[in-house]
Amino acid sequence: MTQTTETRLDQFYADLETYDLKPLWPIAMELMPLEPKPRTVPWLWRWKTLRELAERAGELVTIERGGDRRVLSLANPGLGGLPYATSTLWGAVQYLNGGEHAGAHRHTPGAIRFVLEGDGVYTTVNGDACDMHPGDLILTPSWTWHDHNSSGDSPMIWFDGLDMPTVNTLDAIFFENYPDELLQPVQARNRSERRFPGTGLLPAGTRTRTGPSHSPLLAYRRADVDSALDALLEESGGPMASLEFTDPTSGRPVMPTMACEMHRILPGERTLPTRKVGSSVLVAYKGAGATVVNGIRFEWGSGDMLSVPSWAVVDHEASEPSDLFAISDAPVLQALGLYRELALDAPQEVTAAFPG
Amino acid sequence: MTQTTETRLDQFYADLETYDLKPLWPIAMELMPLEPKPRTVPWLWRWKTLRELAERAGELVTIERGGDRRVLSLANPGLGGLPYATSTLWGAVQYLNGGEHAGAHRHTPGAIRFVLEGDGVYTTVNGDACDMHPGDLILTPSWTWHDHNSSGDSPMIWFDGLDMPTVNTLDAIFFENYPDELLQPVQARNRSERRFPGTGLLPAGTRTRTGPSHSPLLAYRRADVDSALDALLEESGGPMASLEFTDPTSGRPVMPTMACEMHRILPGERTLPTRKVGSSVLVAYKGAGATVVNGIRFEWGSGDMLSVPSWAVVDHEASEPSDLFAISDAPVLQALGLYRELALDAPQEVTAAFPG
Amino acid sequence: MTQTTETRLDQFYADLETYDLKPLWPIAMELMPLEPKPRTVPWLWRWKTLRELAERAGELVTIERGGDRRVLSLANPGLGGLPYATSTLWGAVQYLNGGEHAGAHRHTPGAIRFVLEGDGVYTTVNGDACDMHPGDLILTPSWTWHDHNSSGDSPMIWFDGLDMPTVNTLDAIFFENYPDELLQPVQARNRSERRFPGTGLLPAGTRTRTGPSHSPLLAYRRADVDSALDALLEESGGPMASLEFTDPTSGRPVMPTMACEMHRILPGERTLPTRKVGSSVLVAYKGAGATVVNGIRFEWGSGDMLSVPSWAVVDHEASEPSDLFAISDAPVLQALGLYRELALDAPQEVTAAFPG
Amino acid sequence: MTQTTETRLDQFYADLETYDLKPLWPIAMELMPLEPKPRTVPWLWRWKTLRELAERAGELVTIERGGDRRVLSLANPGLGGLPYATSTLWGAVQYLNGGEHAGAHRHTPGAIRFVLEGDGVYTTVNGDACDMHPGDLILTPSWTWHDHNSSGDSPMIWFDGLDMPTVNTLDAIFFENYPDELLQPVQARNRSERRFPGTGLLPAGTRTRTGPSHSPLLAYRRADVDSALDALLEESGGPMASLEFTDPTSGRPVMPTMACEMHRILPGERTLPTRKVGSSVLVAYKGAGATVVNGIRFEWGSGDMLSVPSWAVVDHEASEPSDLFAISDAPVLQALGLYRELALDAPQEVTAAFPG
Repeated sequence: MTQTTETRLDQFYADLETYDLKPLWPIAMELMPLEPKPRTVPWLWRWKTLRELAERAGELVTIERGGDRRVLSLANPGLGGLPYATSTLWGAVQYLNGGEHAGAHRHTPGAIRFVLEGDGVYTTVNGDACDMHPGDLILTPSWTWHDHNSSGDSPMIWFDGLDMPTVNTLDAIFFENYPDELLQPVQARNRSERRFPGTGLLPAGTRTRTGPSHSPLLAYRRADVDSALDALLEESGGPMASLEFTDPTSGRPVMPTMACEMHRILPGERTLPTRKVGSSVLVAYKGAGATVVNGIRFEWGSGDMLSVPSWAVVDHEASEPSDLFAISDAPVLQALGLYRELALDAPQEVTAAFPG
Repeated sequence: MTQTTETRLDQFYADLETYDLKPLWPIAMELMPLEPKPRTVPWLWRWKTLRELAERAGELVTIERGGDRRVLSLANPGLGGLPYATSTLWGAVQYLNGGEHAGAHRHTPGAIRFVLEGDGVYTTVNGDACDMHPGDLILTPSWTWHDHNSSGDSPMIWFDGLDMPTVNTLDAIFFENYPDELLQPVQARNRSERRFPGTGLLPAGTRTRTGPSHSPLLAYRRADVDSALDALLEESGGPMASLEFTDPTSGRPVMPTMACEMHRILPGERTLPTRKVGSSVLVAYKGAGATVVNGIRFEWGSGDMLSVPSWAVVDHEASEPSDLFAISDAPVLQALGLYRELALDAPQEVTAAFPG
Repeated sequence: MTQTTETRLDQFYADLETYDLKPLWPIAMELMPLEPKPRTVPWLWRWKTLRELAERAGELVTIERGGDRRVLSLANPGLGGLPYATSTLWGAVQYLNGGEHAGAHRHTPGAIRFVLEGDGVYTTVNGDACDMHPGDLILTPSWTWHDHNSSGDSPMIWFDGLDMPTVNTLDAIFFENYPDELLQPVQARNRSERRFPGTGLLPAGTRTRTGPSHSPLLAYRRADVDSALDALLEESGGPMASLEFTDPTSGRPVMPTMACEMHRILPGERTLPTRKVGSSVLVAYKGAGATVVNGIRFEWGSGDMLSVPSWAVVDHEASEPSDLFAISDAPVLQALGLYRELALDAPQEVTAAFPG
Repeated sequence: MTQTTETRLDQFYADLETYDLKPLWPIAMELMPLEPKPRTVPWLWRWKTLRELAERAGELVTIERGGDRRVLSLANPGLGGLPYATSTLWGAVQYLNGGEHAGAHRHTPGAIRFVLEGDGVYTTVNGDACDMHPGDLILTPSWTWHDHNSSGDSPMIWFDGLDMPTVNTLDAIFFENYPDELLQPVQARNRSERRFPGTGLLPAGTRTRTGPSHSPLLAYRRADVDSALDALLEESGGPMASLEFTDPTSGRPVMPTMACEMHRILPGERTLPTRKVGSSVLVAYKGAGATVVNGIRFEWGSGDMLSVPSWAVVDHEASEPSDLFAISDAPVLQALGLYRELALDAPQEVTAAFPG
């Protein structure tokens, strides 16, 4: 390159900047890597810490009008300070003291609530008061009015999972407080469960009505999930059975943006590793074991939370019968034709242990 | 019309017949009536008769190889001797003595079995042995291998519902006996229920697999249906609640050709009449009451069967808590864009009582 | 069998008849044959005959109010006098003299019009006046108002294809004359073509509107079909290219009950035979050749019409470049999970020639 | 707040940071605004500048192996230096000199090419060499092999639109260079157009094959679009007609991640403003006019490019007949249940003019 050419190039690059343009060639390989290079890192949050900090929040911070919630969000260290568990998923613990109420609002990001501890709380979703008990999954889908209410004496802690990072990226967040009042009127208690009362048993005429894009069933109970996992495990023979929580009227994920699954793992061998496009957050509901992500071994116990990046190599093993709850963005990847999964046929090497 | 014209017309009509043609104008109004004019007539078969004749068949007729079944089909008097309950639906009672086996075969018409009396029988469907108890619904969908087996001492009677008239009209019937053997090997017992173990709880990955067009869940149990109807009734407030048996992976009817429903009616007022395109066969599973069809009042009790033509005006009333099981061709009408339903806002006049 | 048993059986069968029941076992193999046994027979109607008889109808029979049309229907000799081309399809020629009008009505059976001869006619469909020229396909879908109008001097003959036998079997026929007036008002001319003006080019927002179950495009023009077949033939290399007329907003058949196709066959070898479930009516639009159906050879020329039963073995050969238009009930079979097709790898034997 | 409480809070916030947690309450309103607050700003790039800089790139920068392209990307000033036109869309100009070849590769982000100037180029997509002329739209969908080749003497400039920001956010980018060779073999020329040769005319059997999630038609020609817009405009009466480029086998957007539209605007009044969730990039293909975005007036002429943020208030007016090409992320928003649009009934106030 002659001096002249170099000068001309410098001038050219300067002009591009002036006119709000970028040359592709210097950044092409960074923009289009051979395979996903997530900024999300595999990371684990301990229940002991989460619980203790949530409790301190319960003492120090009051819940007030304006969309506020007493929520501590998992901030993945790879994401530069963003309050996100992965690049597409919000994960958090929410803490409600006995007798407290978190006022009604709605937003386009959809949320799931997975109860970890406590009792006496119900979440009202568009007028339907859904009781919450440990191990239950409660939905507050996109743009549904919802408030959380404790009628008990003791606090409750639950896991919040939201599609908020994705909805934010798409510049599609709308938010609204319930007009005038703190709480919406309760029209019924646990109504959605009465309307979808058994496997494959739908109210007549359901199919011919056009519905929203999320599940009309709002609560999935621990006892049902527990016996369902037993049945799946008996059928598969083990060591792991996985179920997905779905819309009973369509078999689709509970929301178009987020899937919820529960995995039961029996003690024994490590599972064979798999990879899939899209990220997840795992919550160990009960048991103890270890998950290896990209060679790093994460030991977990009840209540621990683990973020898993896209295309990570993942396997599990349990030291006692364990239930791992998981949220993922798989429905987004699938809807957009971008989903891939790969089952590896040999164990991955463990190269490090978390926290290192 | 001059004599000449008449002569020419006569010659013309004769020539049409010679050349396998028909003029539309003389038959246009018959071909295209203002609304459906079904040949199917509303008709009721009494359980007392059905049971007694089935029992006699059990004594007189043996079950043998070759697709045979000990089956008495409802022959709607409007259909000129055809063995069909309605123009599109086959309805029948099937009788299996204790210890008997009805050999394995498959056919493109899909069938449902709704158990009325007896125990100790299982139907094997593609290797899955499904136990049968009173009030259970068992599916043997299109082109699945199936055989019926009694391991008990006493006979069983069930209702058979098939889409056979429709499949026959479409010249789409294929039939095959299981090769060599009378019965297919049993690979598992009640497996399909373990694979779909709870409302909205699917084996992970179900959604991304391409399945057949029928429900993979093959058995719907009386106890589940009973409590589901209670829940729906509590939700609706009564006097009637209706559920549809559906494919848990899609919310669609159990088969593309036939829908199954259960209606629970509480004693009290007559329901407001409705009309819908497509025919049904009702089976009173328990209770007692009356159904008015096109002005004719049919009193029914447990085990009675009633055929209902397309577009008939229908209402119900119960004298005790009653469960009406029903099959219909609604999915066909809906798939072809031909379904209509109409809710009337005044009771229909009763002009006659069955049997007249 | 003892005399006693025989007597008891006779009494049993008599009782069954009394109580409107049929025993399955004597008729099982007839009801459920190993493969379809259509009553529809392969049959050919000659254009020379059709044209001459239609012309005579034009002289002898006037068109009057009341849903009448000057229509000669193909009456398949296998169907016992029914005015149907096959068990599921109506095929006919319709004849309109210059200056005549066939008044407006609508019915749930859907119809297609494929123009064979003449000009100067338009069919108004829900207010859209669609011009008709030889080789054009015009749709009058289920429950659309339609009338046919000649503004020319000479007669037009077209092929009518309807799903009427199927809709009749389903007891789903509704019919209505246009209120008060003979003809509906014309709101636009050939509007549907302007709204769907090119391959893959839809009015913005089309996708998010819920539409009817039939194509909103009502006219498919000969010139477009001709060049499309040339393109497909260039792509496939011959000797046959087949296109389906579809709903441009969904790629589905023009109606949920009936598919329309055009096959171009070049002179040369016989095609390899195929079988498919469901029946068809073929109309030779131009050219000359022969079709072998279940071993019977049917020679055809321009305007001839051929009915093809379900599951028939079919192959074609052309003696000059030929276009075969076809209607079929394939969408019904596919929607109901009953469709099968089979490509044979050896020519079928010709055992007879039509007319025998 | 007592000193003690404040101290405890400080310690609490410090502990949260230590344990990779974030409190929601201080950031709740920023995370969940009442309506979208895009970082994307409305911005316009002038054709004069784009063309001149692309030409200089053509002199200074060579095209080499390794996924490189001579591409200048629109870098929206609101996005902090990212090379994206909006938060979800990549927009760029690509410049190919006469005789040059840009080698074959594939990537999961899908791309569209909209030709602005030049001739003699073809893009090969999975073996199908698609000719490119001004005004044509060429697709290189997700994971299809593609290379660009000039067989002419003069350069070509086209607009590149990609869903890359979205695919990147989802950590779903895979990239692969064509093995060994620079270019893939050409198997056919413009084959996809021969396979989809007319409105609603599909190769028979298309519907029953399972396809990819993108359009199999790869090229949409200027002449067809031009006459289609004329037809739509005649139908709508003006002053604006909009068409969407769609998959002819399904009526869906050309890709699951990106929609392409063309708007024709006649001189006259400003259109009434609309808002929609999701962002767009507009390219003025011909004509001249102005678009007002959130009160800022952008005057444009042929070749100018304009980025439009989510939920912006937008109206157009033309000073001569104008065609505006547009890409948007609408399919993503719609698939995820997040799409909204709003038609305002009064003009928006113009508060500023770009560039200010």
